[in-house]
Amino acid sequence: MTIRVNLAESSYDIQIENNAIDRCGNLFDKYNKVFIVTDSGVPKEYSERVAKSANGKAVVFVMKRGEENKNFVTLMNICNDMLTNGLTRKDCVCAVGGGVVGDITAFAASIYMRGIDFYNFPTTLLSMVDSSSGGKTGIDFGNVKNVIGTFYQPKKVIIDPSVLKTLSERQVRCGLAEALKMAATFDSKLFDFMSKGSFTDGEMQHIIERSVELKKSIVEKDVKEKSIRKSLNFGHTIGHGIEVAGKESRYHGECVAIGMVAMSSSDSSALFTR
Amino acid sequence: MTIRVNLAESSYDIQIENNAIDRCGNLFDKYNKVFIVTDSGVPKEYSERVAKSANGKAVVFVMKRGEENKNFVTLMNICNDMLTNGLTRKDCVCAVGGGVVGDITAFAASIYMRGIDFYNFPTTLLSMVDSSSGGKTGIDFGNVKNVIGTFYQPKKVIIDPSVLKTLSERQVRCGLAEALKMAATFDSKLFDFMSKGSFTDGEMQHIIERSVELKKSIVEKDVKEKSIRKSLNFGHTIGHGIEVAGKESRYHGECVAIGMVAMSSSDSSALFTR
Repeated sequence: MTIRVNLAESSYDIQIENNAIDRCGNLFDKYNKVFIVTDSGVPKEYSERVAKSANGKAVVFVMKRGEENKNFVTLMNICNDMLTNGLTRKDCVCAVGGGVVGDITAFAASIYMRGIDFYNFPTTLLSMVDSSSGGKTGIDFGNVKNVIGTFYQPKKVIIDPSVLKTLSERQVRCGLAEALKMAATFDSKLFDFMSKGSFTDGEMQHIIERSVELKKSIVEKDVKEKSIRKSLNFGHTIGHGIEVAGKESRYHGECVAIGMVAMSSSDSSALFTR
Repeated sequence: MTIRVNLAESSYDIQIENNAIDRCGNLFDKYNKVFIVTDSGVPKEYSERVAKSANGKAVVFVMKRGEENKNFVTLMNICNDMLTNGLTRKDCVCAVGGGVVGDITAFAASIYMRGIDFYNFPTTLLSMVDSSSGGKTGIDFGNVKNVIGTFYQPKKVIIDPSVLKTLSERQVRCGLAEALKMAATFDSKLFDFMSKGSFTDGEMQHIIERSVELKKSIVEKDVKEKSIRKSLNFGHTIGHGIEVAGKESRYHGECVAIGMVAMSSSDSSALFTR
C-alpha cells in the first residue's frame, strides 16, 4: 500500500510493504552517496539490507541508542561524518531505526547545506505509526524534548512491517499507545478495533495503515502545527514531563499512555498520589 | 522606501529608512518577549535603541564578534539563553548587527521550537545590501563556511542607513564589494553608477535600495538556490577559500572582491603567484 502525503512541492509517498527495505535500490539511482544513520539498538541487518540496496554507495553511521543521545553532540558528530565523507546536495541521507534515529537524522539532513534529500526507514511500531511521517525533526536540549528542530519533509517513508518481528513486546506496546492516540482523537472505528488488545500480523498492518492515513490527513491540513495538528499531542504534555523526570526508565510510548489516561481521567490527581 | 519580497506565505517587507530602528515599536506589540542578539563589535546604542522600541519586553544577548564565533558553541549559547528566558512561539527574535549576527540569529530562530518569528536589523553595509534579505541562515563548521543552516525568511528587515556613520571605511568597502557583485551580475547601470568610487549619503542609499531590489528579484525566482540564485555566489567560491585560509585577517567583502577579480581575469593564476 502506498499513501501519498500532499504538501505541494514537499509531497511524498509513504510505502507500507513487507520486505520493502530490500527493494529500495531504485530510490538511490540518482545519488552519488547514500549516508545511513542507525543506532546501536537497531538490529544491524536492517541498515545492512538498506546499504546493500544502495549498491556500494552507502556509508553507515551508528549512533548510541537512547533518547539521552538525541542531542547537539550527536548532531555535530553526524554532521561531521557527513562532511568528512564529502556529502553534497547531490547525495541523500537515510534513517534506519526508531523515533530517536529518525528525528535527529532528519534534523541533520534539514540543516546540512541547508537541506539535502532525506529518506526514513522506521523500524519500530511507534515510528511507523507516528513520528516517521509529518516532517517534524528535532533534538532535546536543556531538559526539554524536541525543543530544537525543523519542519522538513522526507522524500519518501519506507515502512516494512516484517522488521517488527525483532521488536520487544514492550516496544510493540509503545507503538500501540501512539496508534491508540490517533484512534482516540480521530477514529472511533479504529479505537473499537484496537480494544481487543492483541493482533495478528495482518491486523497489525491494518493498524499501521490506518494510523498513517489519519496522520497524513491531519498533516495535510496543518503541516506547521498551528491548529488541528496539536490534537496529535494528546497525552504528550504530561507524557514528556514524566519522560524527562524518569530519565529513560520509561519509554516514550509508555509515558504518552500514562499522559492520555491522566488527561482523560475526571480525577487525574489520583494518578500521581499513588 | 519599502520593498516587498513575494514568497507566498513567507512574504515580507524590507524597509529602508533613516532612523527606522527608533520607530519599530509597533512590530513588537503582538509578542510577549523580544529576544535581541547583537555582537561585541556593534555599537551598543543600536541594540539599546531597538530594545527601547520593545518597551520593556526586550532581552539582549551579546555574542563575541567575528566569523570564528559563528559556530555550534555560540548557537547553543543563544538557544540556551532563549530557553532560560522562557521564549515560546508567541515571542520573537531580532538580530542587530552584521552578517555574522544575522546568519546565526536567523538560524537559531529557525530551529528554536521549529521556528519562531525573526526580524533583521542589519547595521553594516554588507548585510544591508546582501545577507539580511533572502532567508539564508547558517553557521560555519569543520572549516566550511555556512555549511550548516536553513532557508528561513524573516518577518521583516529594517534597514536604517543612518547607522552606517559609525562604520569603518574598510567595512564600507566590504559592503560596496557585495553591491558591486550584484551590479556586475545583474545591473550594468548600477555598475556604471558605482564606478565613480566614492558616494554621498544619498548615493549610498540609492546603492542599498538598488541592491536590495536586485536581490529581491533573484530570491523571488529561486528561493532555494537551485538555479539563477547561484549567480549571487560570484566571487564567493574562491573568496570563501581565501577567507578560511586567512583566518580572519581579511574581511568577507575583501575576499569576495579578490574572488571576483580572480574569476574575471583571463589569467587568474597570476593573482596567486605574487
